[in-house]
Amino acid sequence: MDRGDFNGTRGSTTDSVAWSAASPRRGFVSLVGVGPGDPELLTIKAVRALAEAEVVAYDELVSEEILALAPEGAERIAVGRRGGGVRYHEVDLHPVVVERARMGRRVVRLKGGDPSIFGRVGEEALVLAEAGIPFEVVPGVSAALGAAASLALPLTHRLVSSTVTFVTAHLASKEDGAPDIARFERQIADLPKEGTLVFYMGLGTLPELAAALERAGWSLETPALGVSKATTPDERHVTGTLRTLPALVAEAKLAAPALVIVGRVVSVQARIEALSEPSPVNVRRMREVPGRLVASLRRRLARFAA
Amino acid sequence: MDRGDFNGTRGSTTDSVAWSAASPRRGFVSLVGVGPGDPELLTIKAVRALAEAEVVAYDELVSEEILALAPEGAERIAVGRRGGGVRYHEVDLHPVVVERARMGRRVVRLKGGDPSIFGRVGEEALVLAEAGIPFEVVPGVSAALGAAASLALPLTHRLVSSTVTFVTAHLASKEDGAPDIARFERQIADLPKEGTLVFYMGLGTLPELAAALERAGWSLETPALGVSKATTPDERHVTGTLRTLPALVAEAKLAAPALVIVGRVVSVQARIEALSEPSPVNVRRMREVPGRLVASLRRRLARFAA
Repeated sequence: MDRGDFNGTRGSTTDSVAWSAASPRRGFVSLVGVGPGDPELLTIKAVRALAEAEVVAYDELVSEEILALAPEGAERIAVGRRGGGVRYHEVDLHPVVVERARMGRRVVRLKGGDPSIFGRVGEEALVLAEAGIPFEVVPGVSAALGAAASLALPLTHRLVSSTVTFVTAHLASKEDGAPDIARFERQIADLPKEGTLVFYMGLGTLPELAAALERAGWSLETPALGVSKATTPDERHVTGTLRTLPALVAEAKLAAPALVIVGRVVSVQARIEALSEPSPVNVRRMREVPGRLVASLRRRLARFAA
Repeated sequence: MDRGDFNGTRGSTTDSVAWSAASPRRGFVSLVGVGPGDPELLTIKAVRALAEAEVVAYDELVSEEILALAPEGAERIAVGRRGGGVRYHEVDLHPVVVERARMGRRVVRLKGGDPSIFGRVGEEALVLAEAGIPFEVVPGVSAALGAAASLALPLTHRLVSSTVTFVTAHLASKEDGAPDIARFERQIADLPKEGTLVFYMGLGTLPELAAALERAGWSLETPALGVSKATTPDERHVTGTLRTLPALVAEAKLAAPALVIVGRVVSVQARIEALSEPSPVNVRRMREVPGRLVASLRRRLARFAA
């Protein structure tokens, strides 16, 4: 009696067993957050997943330095597109990721920041679960946390703010291609009136954001900060209010990826920055030698896979 | 002409120079987030700060395994207290931290999760800036991000939730010691009505939280999840609705530290979990060998300081 006869009455089980027999080593997918930019902000778990990868799928938010942590022999697949340069993580799980996992490969899907925050992990985990592919999610330092640390900006503060809200309110297009202003205004109106807001969005729509916040009851004198490429050597930020920030950001030509942080905690940051000499950001840069660090990390951590 | 004469008209500059002369190596403080529990979720930057530490200040939220990453010769200072076991990070910067930095030491202040989210980094950074002590903030994986990854729970979802709010609304005491219900209700009423809410709070006040959310307009049928000790081998969670969760949590005897996650994303998680075999959590546990890992990390990363 062969295996096919034995499982004859259970079609789907037979398929599953046959598939297992054909590829005795089951594939595995790690959905890995790589943090805000600085390669030192990868977690040990992310470094280990990379060191063990046979296939690495990545998009434009992932730097060359981070990709370099995967074994040289690993297959690299660029799955990304970034819609207009202003939206975060507009990337679906590429069919090739599923295909490679079905072939028994250990696949790492790299994502900027943290997979659970604007990282589409819900859709991707569901695809994997439905396909019967074992997977894990490796958390990362979300962009807001990286920027806050780099700027010494407390996202919450005992006396000033007891909540922080991450928002991806962008001017989504309606079916006819025009921006959906009404939906945007509803999203803004639903935000907490006290507490800290962090917008993961393009800086191009900052004037519309400030106007919508004002209509929702926010004072235009609320402190606000724009930060670009946080935790990288190109990090820059400008500080003002909801009234002044759009012009300040335009003048400074801040580029994506960027965050806008709104609330009284911005004043706390400004006070800390004014007192700091050298500033926390400068201290960070002085200690940072990315090229050397990555080479060293790679040498020392590649053996984790063994 | 000696230096004192030269600087005679600038008192504060003279003081600063004299202080530098007395301790030629300036102290430095790293305010370091150690993530949600799993030592593998430390960032490389945090591991390096620990490997370079001469003084380590920590509280009860930091595990022995993480402390073991500091050099054996480093001074260890327990600065923590955890108020009643239910509040996060109720710890001020200990005077000894400032004192050791003034002596020229490299001090690492470890904090559970991420320092910028309910970690009092605002107060601590201000103290350091005012004291003229150089410092940095090293971000970490906040508890919500760790729990979300461990559970394969998307904190945001393109079709379901475009915001996530972290809340530390707890029943703060008034001056007479009685809980300040009115303030608590105001905080809850200010939260977004759509989107995901994550409460960093004790599970003991969950019935009051559910009632306050209902009064603020939330349906008691809203999906809700309680998770305890996320990312550690003792992680446990229960899933229900705002109506059922208080009883479920009590029945399961979930212990602190814990999070409560409220919103439609909880249903997405439940669907992913039901389809996953083995569950994402089980997969994670299978791959985890904390003792061996920490020993290996320590061996390989201690040389970063060199």
